[in-house]
Amino acid sequence: MPAAEKIIRQAGRSTGRHRRQGECMGGKDNIFEVLQAQDGVGLVEKQVFTMPSYTTIGGKTIRDVRIGYETYGTLNARGDNAILIAHYFSGTSHAAGRYATTDTETGYWDAIIGPGKAIDTDRYFVVSADTLANVNAGDRNAVTTGPASIDPDTGKPYGMRFPIVTIRDFVNVQKALVDALGIRKLHAVAGPSMGSMQAIEWAVAFPDMVERVAAVIPAGLEADPYLVATLNIWMAPIMLDPDWNQGDYYGAQAPVKGLAATLKNIMLNGLHPGWANAACGRKPALAADDMLRDFGGRFLIETTLEQVGLMRADMLDANSLLYTAKACQLFSIAHQGTLQDAARGIKGKVLLMPAVSDLLMLPDYARKAAELLRACGKQVDYVELQGVGGHFDGLQAIGQAGSALRHFIDT
Amino acid sequence: MPAAEKIIRQAGRSTGRHRRQGECMGGKDNIFEVLQAQDGVGLVEKQVFTMPSYTTIGGKTIRDVRIGYETYGTLNARGDNAILIAHYFSGTSHAAGRYATTDTETGYWDAIIGPGKAIDTDRYFVVSADTLANVNAGDRNAVTTGPASIDPDTGKPYGMRFPIVTIRDFVNVQKALVDALGIRKLHAVAGPSMGSMQAIEWAVAFPDMVERVAAVIPAGLEADPYLVATLNIWMAPIMLDPDWNQGDYYGAQAPVKGLAATLKNIMLNGLHPGWANAACGRKPALAADDMLRDFGGRFLIETTLEQVGLMRADMLDANSLLYTAKACQLFSIAHQGTLQDAARGIKGKVLLMPAVSDLLMLPDYARKAAELLRACGKQVDYVELQGVGGHFDGLQAIGQAGSALRHFIDT
Repeated sequence: MPAAEKIIRQAGRSTGRHRRQGECMGGKDNIFEVLQAQDGVGLVEKQVFTMPSYTTIGGKTIRDVRIGYETYGTLNARGDNAILIAHYFSGTSHAAGRYATTDTETGYWDAIIGPGKAIDTDRYFVVSADTLANVNAGDRNAVTTGPASIDPDTGKPYGMRFPIVTIRDFVNVQKALVDALGIRKLHAVAGPSMGSMQAIEWAVAFPDMVERVAAVIPAGLEADPYLVATLNIWMAPIMLDPDWNQGDYYGAQAPVKGLAATLKNIMLNGLHPGWANAACGRKPALAADDMLRDFGGRFLIETTLEQVGLMRADMLDANSLLYTAKACQLFSIAHQGTLQDAARGIKGKVLLMPAVSDLLMLPDYARKAAELLRACGKQVDYVELQGVGGHFDGLQAIGQAGSALRHFIDT
Repeated sequence: MPAAEKIIRQAGRSTGRHRRQGECMGGKDNIFEVLQAQDGVGLVEKQVFTMPSYTTIGGKTIRDVRIGYETYGTLNARGDNAILIAHYFSGTSHAAGRYATTDTETGYWDAIIGPGKAIDTDRYFVVSADTLANVNAGDRNAVTTGPASIDPDTGKPYGMRFPIVTIRDFVNVQKALVDALGIRKLHAVAGPSMGSMQAIEWAVAFPDMVERVAAVIPAGLEADPYLVATLNIWMAPIMLDPDWNQGDYYGAQAPVKGLAATLKNIMLNGLHPGWANAACGRKPALAADDMLRDFGGRFLIETTLEQVGLMRADMLDANSLLYTAKACQLFSIAHQGTLQDAARGIKGKVLLMPAVSDLLMLPDYARKAAELLRACGKQVDYVELQGVGGHFDGLQAIGQAGSALRHFIDT
């Protein structure tokens, strides 16, 4: 089950430097090596964009803002062949290529970004940016300013004193980056999941600049209340962990147990029974597990999610996860007025691409967004990703959408 | 939105004695009073069935077993007009009627159980039984033997030393009760959710006794690995709470925070975006909530689920919830051999009734079960509950299935 294996590998890795994997998959690394050996953008480098200060839409000023970004391809003289890629909840700006020839993993959308691929780096200048308060704050390949950063006013990590940041704030910082790079038009903004929120927000915030929006496994035009509640549930185990200590755990024991429980939850929400059946079935974790007599006996699906959760918990920052979840909860293009008001302002065309087996960003969210946008006179393409990989099909199974994406991007 | 209000009320109450409710719903009590004023089984009484000892399928013996039950209607002389009702995860044997004329709530399936109703108590003798390790261990209207019970060997509560119990164990104890009541044939066994597991298990365990199985919002023939993982995630917050203390919290501070987080999670899994939109939308909990500047600002959907979770946490037993979750994880009709082997042994006909908006027991589980049972030559009816109430439509919206149920039961 290569697809299933790659999903859990994706869940289990950060930005390519992590090699361990959950128990569900066997030794089929070579299958992926073959996939990954195809020509792509090659070696890439994380770059850093800095702003002396940025004021959030909530009116708080953050000093010394730094975010990481990567670029693939070349900007043309008119500055109008750029495509911006926005990442998902637990992702980084590593969207394509490798940092070193020894990396076994490429960026998450390598299947569609590269020379001759759907997002063709021979034609387009692709920019991929880290968000503020990026979850991977401890990862050397994610550069971000967030609760784990040092507050210049105190010399100590912000913790929960960091200002609330929103999807619009992510976009505003990206706008400064895009301007600094000399980009005058965005041929497209594209992203999966939380990246779709940023892509749509871009079209609302800077309608004259955005010609196309490709929203993959999208939330729609706002975080549905059910999604708001799901994000609340993701946040809960961290805040239950005594080691969280109201966010002041830097230099002490981090809330690894709570964070691991949160990550287990996120993974499950991102997956689907079809995947769980194929990858683990109802097998006990160990042949010796006495499921009828030992309460500690576990099914393989449980230990797999737990192990991947624990692995990732070592690399992520709990407070940053809370801030990113809050940003997603607050997402709505309707800053003032209605969704319709905001939608009417969009000038670019929109592609909505849900995954049919998605249990987190339900295909219904995309359908409703398409309906609303069309009712507002917008041009909308709607394409479904097939598969049983759930939400993660927007990452792992994106290759199937190459021609649909290419058509949307090139026309 | 009466349906939405009743769902959250159902989530927020125990067995009829609880009056408070979450914030989402307004003062529409009278709507339900009208519904509930229709004639039903009237006043009912909890009775207690005792067994000197019961040996689990895991081989452990539990002494002094007590479970509660209720009956509606009259057993005929041949003892063959009985219908057994098995309850859902957080339910009790209070399936119909009221304990007192002042009760504002009836039993959970009152819409379909009563004189002239789908499960017609003028014709059938209905028995509804509490499970072992019932989650409502602290509720005076649930009678159960489980981790909160006193271990006769030590004089102290079992805690996590209580033996693992399974759906088959629930059924075996019910079999002893049914025998004691003089029942010789079960005209039907019916139940929602975890009750559907018991109903199907009955048909596998005692095929000559069970003429019909009505499995509502069913898991299918086993707990899917995705469901196993979901149950793991339900268990996690309890075990993260330091007050849980490995299950030894009786007489001390109970793990209320962890249990509340668990219950919030269960509620959300049981609901659906359609409900969340109708009941709460994206409204902040308080007009004063400064969502862009105060990290403690909450959406109404969050505070509603949190409040209902906290309310119920006061009444439920955390260890019992863990044991009930474990029982569900272990559910498979394939005790030895395959699902097909077990399915072939079923003699009664089967009704599978998923809810179309169910995000917990996906309609796919029912479809696959129907397919497998039919391939084994079994007679299967398949009827979908319509609505946007999610899993809880199997409780709240069951009234719509009255004629389908009546047809299945009476023919």
